[in-house]
Amino acid sequence: MRLVVPLDADAPKTRLETLFDAEERAAFARVMLEDVLAALDAAGREPTVLATAPVDCQAPVEVDERPLTDAVNGVLEAADGPVAVVMADLPLATPAALDRLFAGDAGLTIAPGRAAGTNAFVARHPKFRVDYHGTSFADHLAIVEEIGAEVEVVDSHRLATDIDDRADLVEVLVHGTGTRSRDWLAERGVELAVEDGRVGVARR
Amino acid sequence: MRLVVPLDADAPKTRLETLFDAEERAAFARVMLEDVLAALDAAGREPTVLATAPVDCQAPVEVDERPLTDAVNGVLEAADGPVAVVMADLPLATPAALDRLFAGDAGLTIAPGRAAGTNAFVARHPKFRVDYHGTSFADHLAIVEEIGAEVEVVDSHRLATDIDDRADLVEVLVHGTGTRSRDWLAERGVELAVEDGRVGVARR
Repeated sequence: MRLVVPLDADAPKTRLETLFDAEERAAFARVMLEDVLAALDAAGREPTVLATAPVDCQAPVEVDERPLTDAVNGVLEAADGPVAVVMADLPLATPAALDRLFAGDAGLTIAPGRAAGTNAFVARHPKFRVDYHGTSFADHLAIVEEIGAEVEVVDSHRLATDIDDRADLVEVLVHGTGTRSRDWLAERGVELAVEDGRVGVARR
Repeated sequence: MRLVVPLDADAPKTRLETLFDAEERAAFARVMLEDVLAALDAAGREPTVLATAPVDCQAPVEVDERPLTDAVNGVLEAADGPVAVVMADLPLATPAALDRLFAGDAGLTIAPGRAAGTNAFVARHPKFRVDYHGTSFADHLAIVEEIGAEVEVVDSHRLATDIDDRADLVEVLVHGTGTRSRDWLAERGVELAVEDGRVGVARR
């Protein structure tokens, strides 16, 4: 099975700018990638990183400068078998959660992301293509219906938690024990902060 | 198994005040409760609603005016067997997700909620008690360790999604097909709104 992990290597994670400068955000994106690659490796998978620019990491890298949708559709078009795509900003992914993604034999097995997104999928139907703009989860279900394939949805908090903004960092601190991402945050003084009964994060 | 669904019947869901007035918020809380009760019923379970004031719904109701932690600990102390607690603001709960909660035999099976919370659990160890204030998920794991019980965590996006603020409504609109809560939102003109590439909600 062809398995790619797309990475925006250019100006990642801009919504974290209230906590981290550009250099830190790029470093954090890289650390999250390492967590994802480690979890895939522990699940017995062999990913290739599909990056917008060369990066140094423990997996083979293919550079494709095109926007995410075009780059992933390039992979889908070129494949002669199942294709899996797992986003690089899922540091809470565990082998157990990933096993649920890779199980089954539906035309599309899909793990939604918070806020209407798509965080990971395995496409076994040769005609499946992606459209990551906006409400991609619903769009991907519509594409599956159009091509007449079966869909299975993976109900996982870990896979639904892509890290985009401050609130997502709470999830890393609470559920990310043992990940590089959690250690990275802790080393930079990011910790849970309770205010008015809501749990958020603050940087010391 | 004793199964309770705690409901704050007084001034619920204040963080939705930018979209709904107090009467609407109370109505929405009731509609979400109905979805939770329907999902539990479809999973073959018989819940009792543990409410801060009398409510009219399709399940037996017990009134306990105390704060959530005290009321639930009252149930745990009085029980002579396993106790399950499922929050009333989980309209995305499905029988399949709930089956995962009720499966197994750990001293505590727990479904975390976004933002460090606890959305549902089954306690089979007689000494387990709750502490819902602040970072309750971590606190509950600590309590389990203290009493020497085993813990199992249910990794479910549906059970992790308690509905507190506007961003959570995106999840109901995207994943809540067939629920009363999604219909209620749609009837009041709440729909997805994409702005700057982020998916949120707006009310027409």
